[in-house]
Amino acid sequence: MKVIGILGGMGPQATIDLYQKILDSTAARKDQEHIPTLIWSNPGIPDRNLAILHGGPDPSSALREGAIILEAGGADFIVVPCNTAHLFADAIREAVKIPLLNMVEETAARAADRLPPGSPVSILATTATVATGLYQKALEKHGLSFMLPDSGDQEIIMAAIFDERGIKAGFVDDHNRTRVLAVVRRQQELGAVAFIAGCTELPLVIRPDDAECMLDPTLLLAQAAVRLAGAKPRM
Amino acid sequence: MKVIGILGGMGPQATIDLYQKILDSTAARKDQEHIPTLIWSNPGIPDRNLAILHGGPDPSSALREGAIILEAGGADFIVVPCNTAHLFADAIREAVKIPLLNMVEETAARAADRLPPGSPVSILATTATVATGLYQKALEKHGLSFMLPDSGDQEIIMAAIFDERGIKAGFVDDHNRTRVLAVVRRQQELGAVAFIAGCTELPLVIRPDDAECMLDPTLLLAQAAVRLAGAKPRM
Repeated sequence: MKVIGILGGMGPQATIDLYQKILDSTAARKDQEHIPTLIWSNPGIPDRNLAILHGGPDPSSALREGAIILEAGGADFIVVPCNTAHLFADAIREAVKIPLLNMVEETAARAADRLPPGSPVSILATTATVATGLYQKALEKHGLSFMLPDSGDQEIIMAAIFDERGIKAGFVDDHNRTRVLAVVRRQQELGAVAFIAGCTELPLVIRPDDAECMLDPTLLLAQAAVRLAGAKPRM
Repeated sequence: MKVIGILGGMGPQATIDLYQKILDSTAARKDQEHIPTLIWSNPGIPDRNLAILHGGPDPSSALREGAIILEAGGADFIVVPCNTAHLFADAIREAVKIPLLNMVEETAARAADRLPPGSPVSILATTATVATGLYQKALEKHGLSFMLPDSGDQEIIMAAIFDERGIKAGFVDDHNRTRVLAVVRRQQELGAVAFIAGCTELPLVIRPDDAECMLDPTLLLAQAAVRLAGAKPRM
């Protein structure tokens, strides 16, 4: 089996969520049937949203250093359980020879497998991810269209992720679930049938059955990583 | 903050359990207040029980290689979320310059903080851990005594961990919880008031309130790692 390299810590709970989904997606009856995995969980990587939106410290060098640690430690490919960090995917790719399995690309491809062409997919993500068109471009490349929350609802998503009672502060709870679901319901009223939980903190509080088609990039990345590593997938 | 190095994969679910307990034991309101952590989860490390009890492949070289990966990747100290692997602690210590924070020693020390001298502590662990006296020696060093399940109950513990419907096969469920709790109840009838859940698979199915004093080495190791790393502990 290949060695998975997880460049994580953005946040650390989302890193656990990815690794748990990798274990759950692997058909293993004993330790030795699981995939060897090297995880560099570096929560100190500068905030991706502050960098993009407000000129905060650039996370590129920390991401490059992390990729190099994973490659040197024996990883055969890299996965990054942070959607916003994919805005810096080129920095990671340029730092190492091993490939990056791109979560955004994987999610858009699997969305296109499940949905009729042109379907409007609602993007729930950080403001940096939305403002830079990361998911919009990937969806359009795969023949899908997109919807976005209005600015008030976008603020609610950001608050659920980042504020003092937010998911990143450790509040994986009903309060944040309710905040995110309220936005989901309003997007449904506007016609959304599919959603991308496009920040890795969001699948921590919402569930696959919260909408007819709730795409969880963390789960899709885990499943792709299990296939690429050559382990037996759990059906 | 110092960088925690987790030498894990024995099994991988226990590695997640340790990292989750590290996050839960850290007072962090945002990503950047969490501890940088390098995790080498290598489920391919040869089975520690087979090596000790039945002359199976020696895990020492895989443990040494793992410790070297962690040191080279920047870890400041090593923790190993597998009690049985502590039988090979010397191999790990000799491979690297960074220290090993010993889970067995930590657990015995915290047990001595909580219990009157001479208290009998029931050891729930793999047969290799029990047969080699790993916890018995640590408890006696700290002025405590010990109790062990009889051979039938020891087989039940091993089955809950290792059989086809065991915890290592992914069955973190009521069936295995019930099997382990039955042994706990019988030990209580024999006078045990304190327990060590001395295999990292066991805290996945039992809870702190399952006995008056249920010592979880994974949690105690997490708390010690947070202190040693210099993060703010969550009370």
